[in-house]
Amino acid sequence: MKAHVWVMPKRTVLDPQGQTIQHALSSLGYKAVKDVRQGKFFVLDLEGWSRDNAQKELERISREVLTNPVIEEYRFEIVE
Amino acid sequence: MKAHVWVMPKRTVLDPQGQTIQHALSSLGYKAVKDVRQGKFFVLDLEGWSRDNAQKELERISREVLTNPVIEEYRFEIVE
Repeated sequence: MKAHVWVMPKRTVLDPQGQTIQHALSSLGYKAVKDVRQGKFFVLDLEGWSRDNAQKELERISREVLTNPVIEEYRFEIVE
Repeated sequence: MKAHVWVMPKRTVLDPQGQTIQHALSSLGYKAVKDVRQGKFFVLDLEGWSRDNAQKELERISREVLTNPVIEEYRFEIVE
């Protein structure tokens, strides 16, 4: 089974990496790119969990290990 | 218009961040997580491009700015 997890800076939090990229793109001539947010993306290979179990465990892994809940938010999907 | 860009280490490239997370999860008891790959995820806000134009420009932005083509690969989607 595979799972995808997205971890993004919260909307209320500054994203200096994303801003740096937006500025770089603008100075390269890509003026149409008005905003960039950068997050993390994880692909997890899972073995031995039922889908229900995986759902529950991924919730915990995302919240407790992959995300800093003060400044980040997450979502995940079981993909196969 | 919004676009999503995923940048992942190539399959043939070691992913030390992902391995570190996999080891951490294993030592926390999540033995079912057999592999972790970590990549980057970008959300871009675009203004003033047609969909066709955006497709072409995103290809260039992904390849030339967001990705290190020696060790990473990318994919993108225009989402709205």
